Amino acid sequence: MFFPATKYVFGRGVENKVAEELDAFGMKKPLVVYGKGSVIKSGLLDRVRKSLDNAGIRYAELGGVQPNPVDSKVYEGIEIAKREGIDSVLAVGGGSSIDTAKAIAAAIPYDGDFWDFFCGKSKVKKALPVGVVLTIPAAGSEGSGNTVITKLDGLHKLGMGSDVLRPKFALMNPELTFTLPPYQTAAGITDMMAHIMERYFSNTPEVEITDRIAEGLLKAIITEAPKIIAEPENYDARANIMWSGTLAHNGVCSGGREEDWATHGLEHELSAVYDVTHGAGLAVMFPAWMTYALQENPGKLAQFARRVFDIDEDDDYKAADEGIEKLKKFLSSIGMPVSMKELGIENPDVKLLAEKVTENKGEVFGNYIRINRDIAEKIYCIAAQ
Amino acid sequence: MFFPATKYVFGRGVENKVAEELDAFGMKKPLVVYGKGSVIKSGLLDRVRKSLDNAGIRYAELGGVQPNPVDSKVYEGIEIAKREGIDSVLAVGGGSSIDTAKAIAAAIPYDGDFWDFFCGKSKVKKALPVGVVLTIPAAGSEGSGNTVITKLDGLHKLGMGSDVLRPKFALMNPELTFTLPPYQTAAGITDMMAHIMERYFSNTPEVEITDRIAEGLLKAIITEAPKIIAEPENYDARANIMWSGTLAHNGVCSGGREEDWATHGLEHELSAVYDVTHGAGLAVMFPAWMTYALQENPGKLAQFARRVFDIDEDDDYKAADEGIEKLKKFLSSIGMPVSMKELGIENPDVKLLAEKVTENKGEVFGNYIRINRDIAEKIYCIAAQ
Repeated sequence: MFFPATKYVFGRGVENKVAEELDAFGMKKPLVVYGKGSVIKSGLLDRVRKSLDNAGIRYAELGGVQPNPVDSKVYEGIEIAKREGIDSVLAVGGGSSIDTAKAIAAAIPYDGDFWDFFCGKSKVKKALPVGVVLTIPAAGSEGSGNTVITKLDGLHKLGMGSDVLRPKFALMNPELTFTLPPYQTAAGITDMMAHIMERYFSNTPEVEITDRIAEGLLKAIITEAPKIIAEPENYDARANIMWSGTLAHNGVCSGGREEDWATHGLEHELSAVYDVTHGAGLAVMFPAWMTYALQENPGKLAQFARRVFDIDEDDDYKAADEGIEKLKKFLSSIGMPVSMKELGIENPDVKLLAEKVTENKGEVFGNYIRINRDIAEKIYCIAAQ
Repeated sequence: MFFPATKYVFGRGVENKVAEELDAFGMKKPLVVYGKGSVIKSGLLDRVRKSLDNAGIRYAELGGVQPNPVDSKVYEGIEIAKREGIDSVLAVGGGSSIDTAKAIAAAIPYDGDFWDFFCGKSKVKKALPVGVVLTIPAAGSEGSGNTVITKLDGLHKLGMGSDVLRPKFALMNPELTFTLPPYQTAAGITDMMAHIMERYFSNTPEVEITDRIAEGLLKAIITEAPKIIAEPENYDARANIMWSGTLAHNGVCSGGREEDWATHGLEHELSAVYDVTHGAGLAVMFPAWMTYALQENPGKLAQFARRVFDIDEDDDYKAADEGIEKLKKFLSSIGMPVSMKELGIENPDVKLLAEKVTENKGEVFGNYIRINRDIAEKIYCIAAQ
C-alpha cells in the first residue's frame, strides 16, 4: 500500500503560503516546532510568525529542537500542546523538527506514553495533522510517515511510522537552503542517498521499475551535489537536491520490495553514542556495510556499480568492489568522512556498538544480508579502519 | 504544486477490498462505471457487485463505456447519478471508465453543462470522490486528476484536469491484466511511454531528478514489455508495467518543468476521426513528431537516445536520429504500428487532421517545438509515409 498523501508546494517564496495551507487543512491552532539555529538567525521563523499573526492564526511554540532529536523535547511539546489546546503541529526546519512534530502529533490523541509507539508497544492510529516549512533537505521526513527519536535514558535511537503521520503539506523553497553550511549540505545528500540505498539493496527479484527510479535518483544526486558544493546559491541544483530528498523517502523507491535498513540501525548507535551528524555517520557506515555484504551477496551491489557508476565489468565481485570505491570517492569529494577516524572517533568501542545495535534492532537484523552481533562488530571494525 | 493524494493498494486479490476502501473514504452510494467487454466476461464485475452487496453498500450502475469515451455516456451517467442520489463514483476498468467516472464526478456538484470544463469555460472546484478497480494499465488515470472525453458532435476529443479529480483510492491487482490481449497490452505500454515522453521533452533546463526518473521508467518499461508479450501471465512483469503506468502520469515525471503534450493533441484527432486505439495512434504519432522535432531542436532527443537506448554517439543529430529508429524498432517488436498505413489508414486526410488539431489545441501549440497548422500537416505527412 502506498498512500503518498502530502501536498508539496515547491518554489521561490512558498513559505509565505503557510497561513493559507494551514487554513486549507483546517489547522486552526498549531504548535510551531523549530530548532535553535538557522531558522531563527535567517529570520524565517519571524516571517512565519508574522504570516500567522497577519492571518489571525493563534499558535503556541516549541523551540530548541536539536539534531538527533530527543524524547525530553517531545514531552515538553506534549505538555505545551495540551496546555494550549493546540489542534495541529507545524514544523519549521529539517528532519529533527519534523520528527519531533510527528511524535507530538501522535502523542496527543493517545492515552499512554508516546514512547510506546517507538518501542513497539502500540501502533499510531490517529494523529494531529502536521504541516512543514522545510529548510534542510536530508531526512525526507516532509514526505514520509516516519519519525526517529532518541530516548535519553539509555540512548535508544528508534524509529516508527504510520501513514497518518505523513505531513498534510510541505512548503519547499530551495532558496531557504542556500545558507546551509557545506558539511550539513553534504550530510543531507548522504542521508538521502542512504534512504534510497536502504530500499535498493533488496533480495526481492523483478522490481525493475523501482530499481530504475532508485538508480536514476542516485545518478541525479551524484550529478547535482558537486554543483551545490561549488556554488551554494545555485537554485536549480538546490531544487533538484531538495526534491530528491523527498522522493528518496516518500515511498516511491519502495514499491513492492523488502527493504534493508541495517545500515541506518548501525549508524543510529554511532549517533547515539558519539553524537555524530546522522548523514556523516551514514557516509562511514554505508561503505562499511557494503564491504561486508560484498562477501555474502554481491549481486545487487554489482548492479548498483554498473548502473549508478557506469562500471563496465562482467565479474559481479569486482564490479561491486569498484562501485564501493567510487561511492567512497564521491562521498569524500563532497567533504564527507568515510571512516570512523575521519569522523573523529579514534578508538571506537565496537563491542558496545554491536551490543546496542542488536539490543535495539533485534538479535538478527537486516534483509539483504542478515546481521547478528558478531557481524555487526565486524562491520564496525571495517568502519573503524 | 504536486499533490499525489491517491491511496494505491497493490497486489494479488486487492479488488476484494473494494467495500473496505469505499467505507474508508465515506463513499456510501457509488455509481459503478464500467465498459462492455472483459470486466463482464472475466467475472470481475460480478465479484465487485457481490463485495458491495455483502457489505450492504447500495449502488447504481453505468455500463457500456467504450474506448475513447464519449460525452453521451457521461450525460447518461449524470442522469442516473442524480436520479439515484449517488455520492461517489467507482470505476471498474481502464482509462475510459475512469475518465467517464471523473467527468460525472465533476458534473454532479456543478450547475452548468459538464462540457464547460473541457472547452475551458469553467474550472472544476469540487467533485464527488472517485475510486478505481484498475484492469488496464495504460492511461494512468488511476493516479491522475485528468480526464479525456470526446464530444460526439464534431468529434472534439478534449482533456481537462484538477487535483480534486484524483481518485481517492486505486485497487491494483496485476493478475487482472493477465487476459489483456497482446495488442491492447502493447497499446497500453505505448500510452504510458508517451505520458512520460510528453513530460520529458521539455526546454526547461536543469531538471535532472525528473529527467532521470523519466529515463529510468522508460528503460524499465523497455525491459519488462517483451516479457509480458512472451509470457502474458508473468506476474512480476505485469506488476512492473502496471505500476509504471501510474507513475508515468501521476506527476512524479512532471516536477518543475514545462510539458509538451503536442503529440497527444495530434493523436487525439487520429482517434476522433479514424477511431483508432489511442496507444496505437501514439505509436505512429510519437516517432513522427520526433522526426520533425529533430530538425528544430535535437538536444533533448539526443539525451533520450543516449540515456534510454544507450546510444554512444557524440553528434546530437545523429544520436537523436538513432534514438528515434530504436524507439520505432521497440514499438514494432511489441506489435505496434509505426505508420498510418500499418494503422490501417490508407489515405489520411492530413489537411482535415491539421485543421482539427489547431481548432482544438490552438493556432500554435506544443512547447518543445511550436506547432502551427502547416507544421501539424507536415507531421501527419511524416506519419503517413
